[in-house]
Amino acid sequence: MIDFGNLKYENGLIIGIVQDRASKEVLMCAYMNREALEKTVETGIAHFCGEPRKKGETSGHLQKVKEIRIDCDMDSVLLLVEQVGGACHMGYRSCFYRNLDGEVVGEKVFEPEDVY
Amino acid sequence: MIDFGNLKYENGLIIGIVQDRASKEVLMCAYMNREALEKTVETGIAHFCGEPRKKGETSGHLQKVKEIRIDCDMDSVLLLVEQVGGACHMGYRSCFYRNLDGEVVGEKVFEPEDVY
Repeated sequence: MIDFGNLKYENGLIIGIVQDRASKEVLMCAYMNREALEKTVETGIAHFCGEPRKKGETSGHLQKVKEIRIDCDMDSVLLLVEQVGGACHMGYRSCFYRNLDGEVVGEKVFEPEDVY
Repeated sequence: MIDFGNLKYENGLIIGIVQDRASKEVLMCAYMNREALEKTVETGIAHFCGEPRKKGETSGHLQKVKEIRIDCDMDSVLLLVEQVGGACHMGYRSCFYRNLDGEVVGEKVFEPEDVY
């Protein structure tokens, strides 16, 4: 088991990338601190910094974490998850729903006004 | 076209996540500044902060960028690439080659001593 104390935090933070384990779509990325990492492992539900801390606390769109991978530099982690609903507060399955031309290429899975 | 001037840089940086377009494996993440983004778009080859700036400058393991996606907060980008060789300087295809138990789960594609 990798010791969370050995990770390379910058200002107490590492980058957490979230990928759908089944579709392999990259859903989002957000900063995690040691506490968020520990809560994620303890509960099996993705936690990040900021409020609400548990991703999907308000919307119910939780991320069930099935596996965690660590990168070579130990300054970022990859969470392989089962995503309930959508990861993005804008209603899309993935936060990366636009291409460089500004076109929407991601799938909308809920209407934000119905949820928040 | 999204204006790179409108992205939400923190200390001049945004997060760049690199995903293999074909296998959908998450290969790495690294910080990019506006110049790195512009060079990436201009050349079609992934550029990051730090030296050497072009990813794979020494190893020849370039990343040919086929598509770029922007996240909802505009503080991270997802590069969909064709990876030549391996993304990780440790010789693995992906930098996320270990799980939380410290087990190697990623594929080794080259020997670092043969390349650097």
